[in-house]
Amino acid sequence: MSHATSPLARPFPAIPPIDGVTLHVARAGYKDWGRCDLTYVELAEGTAVAGVFTRNVCCSSEVELGRDNVRQGQARALVVNAGNSNAFTGYRGREAVEAIMDQVAAHLGCPREQVFVSSTGVIGVPLPKDKARAGIEAALKTVPCTWEDAAETIGTTDTFAKGALATAMVDGKTVTLAAIIKGSGMIAPDMATMLGYVFTDCAIAPAFLQQLLSAASDRSFNCITVDSDTSTSDTVLAFATGKAGNTELSRFDSPGADAFAAALNDVCHQLAHLVVRDGEGASKFIAVTVTGAASDDSARKVGLAIANSPLVKTATAGEDANWGRVVMAVGKAGEPADRDRLSIGFGGTWCAREGLPLADYDEAPVAAHLKGQDITIEVDLGLGEGRATVWTCDLTHGYISINADYRS
Amino acid sequence: MSHATSPLARPFPAIPPIDGVTLHVARAGYKDWGRCDLTYVELAEGTAVAGVFTRNVCCSSEVELGRDNVRQGQARALVVNAGNSNAFTGYRGREAVEAIMDQVAAHLGCPREQVFVSSTGVIGVPLPKDKARAGIEAALKTVPCTWEDAAETIGTTDTFAKGALATAMVDGKTVTLAAIIKGSGMIAPDMATMLGYVFTDCAIAPAFLQQLLSAASDRSFNCITVDSDTSTSDTVLAFATGKAGNTELSRFDSPGADAFAAALNDVCHQLAHLVVRDGEGASKFIAVTVTGAASDDSARKVGLAIANSPLVKTATAGEDANWGRVVMAVGKAGEPADRDRLSIGFGGTWCAREGLPLADYDEAPVAAHLKGQDITIEVDLGLGEGRATVWTCDLTHGYISINADYRS
Repeated sequence: MSHATSPLARPFPAIPPIDGVTLHVARAGYKDWGRCDLTYVELAEGTAVAGVFTRNVCCSSEVELGRDNVRQGQARALVVNAGNSNAFTGYRGREAVEAIMDQVAAHLGCPREQVFVSSTGVIGVPLPKDKARAGIEAALKTVPCTWEDAAETIGTTDTFAKGALATAMVDGKTVTLAAIIKGSGMIAPDMATMLGYVFTDCAIAPAFLQQLLSAASDRSFNCITVDSDTSTSDTVLAFATGKAGNTELSRFDSPGADAFAAALNDVCHQLAHLVVRDGEGASKFIAVTVTGAASDDSARKVGLAIANSPLVKTATAGEDANWGRVVMAVGKAGEPADRDRLSIGFGGTWCAREGLPLADYDEAPVAAHLKGQDITIEVDLGLGEGRATVWTCDLTHGYISINADYRS
Repeated sequence: MSHATSPLARPFPAIPPIDGVTLHVARAGYKDWGRCDLTYVELAEGTAVAGVFTRNVCCSSEVELGRDNVRQGQARALVVNAGNSNAFTGYRGREAVEAIMDQVAAHLGCPREQVFVSSTGVIGVPLPKDKARAGIEAALKTVPCTWEDAAETIGTTDTFAKGALATAMVDGKTVTLAAIIKGSGMIAPDMATMLGYVFTDCAIAPAFLQQLLSAASDRSFNCITVDSDTSTSDTVLAFATGKAGNTELSRFDSPGADAFAAALNDVCHQLAHLVVRDGEGASKFIAVTVTGAASDDSARKVGLAIANSPLVKTATAGEDANWGRVVMAVGKAGEPADRDRLSIGFGGTWCAREGLPLADYDEAPVAAHLKGQDITIEVDLGLGEGRATVWTCDLTHGYISINADYRS
């Protein structure tokens, strides 16, 4: 963690153990650094798994294999390598992932399809098989570690360890969801990668877990942006050990399904926000809420056009209530919008309504709001009922320094 | 021009007068500055006009009226206001543009649809009608000015005056194309705007001029990006006075049509490059060439994904041969690509071929290339015959300083 802790950092929460989940970390030495860089998570037999993956077509072998293997629905282990993303490494990269899967499957006596692997770090260098093998052997000999240890070990250029916790009452039992994530710092030639993992003791059918995870991701991970760039390795996996003793959730009318879905949404939401809070160079956390759109999806696209606009992001860094740049971003989004119905506000104060600057616009409360760390931008398109909120951070000299001011 | 001249600036060329085009500049005082900010161009009777306009749906009244009026094909005058974009100003903004059109039409005794108006600068403030009226009256009393004077007067935060020249042999006559452009500097709360104008003495039918201008724009203005943001006022107009005496060009098989089309492509190409060379904070000019794509359009989209990537742009600023970030940008473009057929190079040296880093990759020539001001990035997708080149600049601390380090 070569950069100062983000000013938007949050403390790591007190997360209890999850029955059926055992965490280990070890030093594989993927880079020349004095820290653990391999995380091994053992999961009880019968653990259900679901996953969402990057849509980048140049994805890593880890993503390809994970996408295939998540379909059979069961998981016994997760291995996360930090320091080498193994992306763009051709057949040699794929062999390295398969070797890890074989090693762990032999140890556990399970099908190799139940072993999930993620890697993050330098690209273009095949993951060294010998280091991975020795790292896993070392991890198997360690005593279990804490959630915070695991969150630190999966990180690369993250400036703080990121975790989230939620509980839900399901079928008379309290189920717990523990989650960790890494992202989205990066240093050339590393690749920004978001790797997130949710663990729960809830009993839930894999297909239903997948359905809930996909829906939760659409409202969390798919609503954040730091710099509009999409990693080749992004992965979110959910593992459910079933040890809580509830009757298995299998559909929306299962007792407690709503409560579990809400808790899953909650942890995904928390994790997504933590990634933005560790955005490179971030000094402000920005929530963009778009209402009055033709549809929710249209609202999200307009929100992302605003959140990805370098001009909006630099204006926010400059504490400038630059609603004109928001107008521009709305107009370029390619979604239905009408200049003369458009309203724009900051921190709950409207600057422009229905296509015109407000005659009695008082900038004082807006200026005060923009001096804070948590910024809201409100856009009403005045067309329909569609709405969405997306989250991003500002664009500062810190981003340039992290990404340009050195040679790899 | 409040910022230092771009290190990528080019000297203004020696452009001769165009028969049928008379340039005037005056001080309307749209801002509190000691410079001319109103340009008035008078065009001979019978001048053909064509135009391309921003696709931003929150466009200004100038763009709406220009887009409507260009259809009738004739122009007698152009007025360009600098310092106030008149965007997002509702009916009052539209009235201001119509007042200018009426004033000039009365002076020339022409239909008001033949008067074209562009504005650039602060948004959300209706263009002051009295200042515009007085500015035009003042301009009509001045002696004609030079191309460089006009290029300076249409500028806002541009750091150098931008012009281009080309000639073509058409039907035994030499026709001349003179062109000026402003963009893409900006200071909050101004809006980045590209305004470009091509003037020629060639005789050419309006519909054919439109066809050639649209095609030329697709290969020039639509292939550049500074920061992926799209202005609400972008406009390129071409005016043809017909004074060169050639037989009117009306179709591709008219004698000399090819030569004129090539000259028009040339000046549009020059203008587009000049805008990138004045990109905010730019220290390097980057040409991204994509070959082997499924189609030319697909190649252009992949090229723009690379050229818009903050990570690619910051890596270039850092003189870092970070081909991994190029892989990422290719993969996120949403176009057909195959990781295992992808080749990436810088300055003509391949770093990776067909999905793998080159075993004998010598970084020395690439490192030397990246230290220069003119950078090329080559991407071969290995799929088809589609190809395109797009142009951008790097992303530096200068961009952040210009756009964030002050309050408006």
